[in-house]
Amino acid sequence: MIRVTFLGTAAARPTVGRNVTGIALQREGEVLLFDCGEGTQRQMMRYQTGFALNHLFVTHIHADHILGIPGLVRTMGLQGRTDPLVIRGPRGSRKTLLDAVYLGVERLPFEVTVEELPDGSTVSFDGWHVDAFSVVHKHNALGFRLREDDRLGRFDVERARALGVPEGPLFGRLHRGESVEVDGRTIDPADLVGPSRAGRSVVFAGDTRPCERVVEMARDADLLIHEATFVEDERERAVETLHSTAAEAAQIALEAGARRLVLTHVSARHADAPDQLRDEAVAIFPGARVAHDGMVIELGYRDDPDEIDATETDTNGAART
Amino acid sequence: MIRVTFLGTAAARPTVGRNVTGIALQREGEVLLFDCGEGTQRQMMRYQTGFALNHLFVTHIHADHILGIPGLVRTMGLQGRTDPLVIRGPRGSRKTLLDAVYLGVERLPFEVTVEELPDGSTVSFDGWHVDAFSVVHKHNALGFRLREDDRLGRFDVERARALGVPEGPLFGRLHRGESVEVDGRTIDPADLVGPSRAGRSVVFAGDTRPCERVVEMARDADLLIHEATFVEDERERAVETLHSTAAEAAQIALEAGARRLVLTHVSARHADAPDQLRDEAVAIFPGARVAHDGMVIELGYRDDPDEIDATETDTNGAART
Repeated sequence: MIRVTFLGTAAARPTVGRNVTGIALQREGEVLLFDCGEGTQRQMMRYQTGFALNHLFVTHIHADHILGIPGLVRTMGLQGRTDPLVIRGPRGSRKTLLDAVYLGVERLPFEVTVEELPDGSTVSFDGWHVDAFSVVHKHNALGFRLREDDRLGRFDVERARALGVPEGPLFGRLHRGESVEVDGRTIDPADLVGPSRAGRSVVFAGDTRPCERVVEMARDADLLIHEATFVEDERERAVETLHSTAAEAAQIALEAGARRLVLTHVSARHADAPDQLRDEAVAIFPGARVAHDGMVIELGYRDDPDEIDATETDTNGAART
Repeated sequence: MIRVTFLGTAAARPTVGRNVTGIALQREGEVLLFDCGEGTQRQMMRYQTGFALNHLFVTHIHADHILGIPGLVRTMGLQGRTDPLVIRGPRGSRKTLLDAVYLGVERLPFEVTVEELPDGSTVSFDGWHVDAFSVVHKHNALGFRLREDDRLGRFDVERARALGVPEGPLFGRLHRGESVEVDGRTIDPADLVGPSRAGRSVVFAGDTRPCERVVEMARDADLLIHEATFVEDERERAVETLHSTAAEAAQIALEAGARRLVLTHVSARHADAPDQLRDEAVAIFPGARVAHDGMVIELGYRDDPDEIDATETDTNGAART
């Protein structure tokens, strides 16, 4: 299961009901954090994502995306952390990110590394990757895509048995694409294994004007998280400040063929009543939703009927302030 | 009315129920802020103190007392602020405070001045003052006392009329201590004006071991806000980390003859259930209370029966998370 927790869904400044940007993505015990606005550590407590994160990805160095870093690393230190933390941001972000990490201290009890990611770069982990891509905002802003490797095709156990393949290691070898010999016959994996199945992908576009690059990266994505700071009446302001309207975000999701769209980075003007944002988006991309703090999206495999596909829950209704 | 709002009452790191340190003090339209931990700006929104503050006093540069500064000044800028802001902290704090103010930016749309206050210094305003005094912690930590000038004595209007003083400017001159002539007679203000009446005082001791300096500054104070990070079982840890237990704080308030004691800076261990802190304090200083986020204390004049003396309210029960 991939679990996406919206820690903060406000634009430039928080409101009583929405904190500034932070998104936790949990996958097989790993926690990734995308952006870390002021107060993110407390949102992580409130929405129970845990602090076992080793990777923070920063879209850009605007205040509402980074001011939670000093407090987060301080609290990690108080918790006795010794594991290293890697913070990655766009070109030109290194000095500011280091300033944030070391604000008021000279050293931390664990290692913090800050790396700049060029457009088009990929950070690879065991079976999954984070792609960084340029978007249209300031400070060389990036968007990120989490992308899993394709999974092996479905293995036809019944047919394998019918062909006389004994259960055990040969099943695994066939599943991984090797031919095997059984009683002098060669068994071809193509007869037993279906086409490989797409891994999941989640795209967080960060702060951006609508752009072709997001369409390309969000192609067929399981989830596109796109900013929608404004509504159509405020389009001019969106253009000036290099943000998007809800309708523009929906159009991007539609062009990309993304499977789900969640809007975030909501201007204070719409924070308490995001209906207009939602309505404008839904008219273009049915099913579009506006995130709220504490919203959780869980993504199973799309082709596995035994797994929950996508559910939306609040981790804690009482904690939604 | 002096209105004290506890914006954050946790020690080193926040909990779901308590943010890190921040105290807003409102007096005749002026808002003063004492310390500004991460998330303070959002607490100011939640507890409706407004952002019309021109003076921030910082006890010391530990993370939980200053990391809200960058976000607060950024939001003030977004609000179109042009009034200057003065930030005052202890000796040696200037560089860190400036780093916090300018984290990620080179300029702000309003002027920010950072000043270091020596032990024993006073910042004076029109009719009130803030005294800075050294306490026993790290980074030259300070405590602060807000102190009003004494008010004029009570003017006996009936007696003035009986003495034939015409209502009008002569009343004011007598009240301010001048002799006046009425029909050839000299009227002595001492016959009409009572002894001057003490102004109010509020002491925030910051982070500190119990110390004589706080006793001296909190002498007869209307309100002493003292940290109580620990309970007596944890005394050794309090000594090591230069903090106080609830019982120690209560002893200080008792020795000072403070009229009210509120405990704050509550360790995460006691955050959800501060009963033991309260019980230990109340055994020594009856009426001691443990602050919670959103607690408001209003202080009227102690000798004016028409004014509310001290009330405790929650600004917004629903927002207590």
